[in-house]
Amino acid sequence: MKKKIITISREFGSGGRTIGRQVAQELGFAFYDKELIEKVAEESGFDKQYIEEQGEYAPAKSSFAYAFIGRDRNGMSISDYIWQAQRKIILSLAEKGNCVIVGRCADYILQDREDCLNVFIHADMEKRAERIVKLYGETDKAPKKRLEEKDKKRKVNYRYYTDREWGASQNYHICLDSGKFGIEKCAKIIAELAREE
Amino acid sequence: MKKKIITISREFGSGGRTIGRQVAQELGFAFYDKELIEKVAEESGFDKQYIEEQGEYAPAKSSFAYAFIGRDRNGMSISDYIWQAQRKIILSLAEKGNCVIVGRCADYILQDREDCLNVFIHADMEKRAERIVKLYGETDKAPKKRLEEKDKKRKVNYRYYTDREWGASQNYHICLDSGKFGIEKCAKIIAELAREE
Repeated sequence: MKKKIITISREFGSGGRTIGRQVAQELGFAFYDKELIEKVAEESGFDKQYIEEQGEYAPAKSSFAYAFIGRDRNGMSISDYIWQAQRKIILSLAEKGNCVIVGRCADYILQDREDCLNVFIHADMEKRAERIVKLYGETDKAPKKRLEEKDKKRKVNYRYYTDREWGASQNYHICLDSGKFGIEKCAKIIAELAREE
Repeated sequence: MKKKIITISREFGSGGRTIGRQVAQELGFAFYDKELIEKVAEESGFDKQYIEEQGEYAPAKSSFAYAFIGRDRNGMSISDYIWQAQRKIILSLAEKGNCVIVGRCADYILQDREDCLNVFIHADMEKRAERIVKLYGETDKAPKKRLEEKDKKRKVNYRYYTDREWGASQNYHICLDSGKFGIEKCAKIIAELAREE
């Protein structure tokens, strides 16, 4: 197996993270999701929760944190600062060895590497709404509204930093509808592709 | 196997047609490509070559054919007229049984059916340029220019008639980079998915 890095981009509620974890387990690869967030938090000095919320949803509108955290020495916005920290960490993780990286524009950041398999996972609104209610419970906001908001933020974030279209098939080697095939099957297809190359 | 209809949308030069033919052969499915064009030509009264050129690249700009062929009784443009004929034929072919249909917005036309597997095939510019030169030879126009023009026309055609984004992963169940995986492997993945469902 030559392939070393699998990046998984995903619509909110599509099960992309779970698929990534299963692929990593099946292949014995490192799995960077929470751990990536922790590293970015450490590198940037920001709180883990803040990174988790903002790292894929920037550019953030608020500039409040500027003065508070005092990270604007280079004239960078907080979003750009987090982006730089994420980028640095993703590039260094990719050097370390076989891994699965979830989200955070890793497909774009690692585009110059030949050893990446870039995956996008999506599912229809209904299936994803069902999934987020099951996983995260109900909130005041209707599930579809929550999905639309998160997707929009990821889309804006991706376009802002990559100048590419989030979810456009041409940016990925394989895109799968997890609502159609199911989590297990998607993980199986990806692991097999990684094994065979 | 429950799945009966596989639609293959593809970037020009990605080998999507060849993949479709291989999938059909492997599964023993009917393969509608040239045959579809012939049927649309028959249904619409237009020349086969005209359908082949215009059927995926409409809306056509010229209105010359109107007066000449006299098909404007309902105030439809030539493009809309061909679209209607294509739509009717694709719906009827889908009723007939297991098949692979290449292009012509079949994924959109058959969206209400539960028995479709919608596929999109793409590849990077370099791989596609190499392929079209090998298959169709050189022309006065640079291969990349030819690819860009064809892609743009297919994109406009798809958006015009479906109000959706051509190549957006969310419109398909699976999208594959044939430049990365190769024709054989793409055909194998699709045939296996169709078999398993």
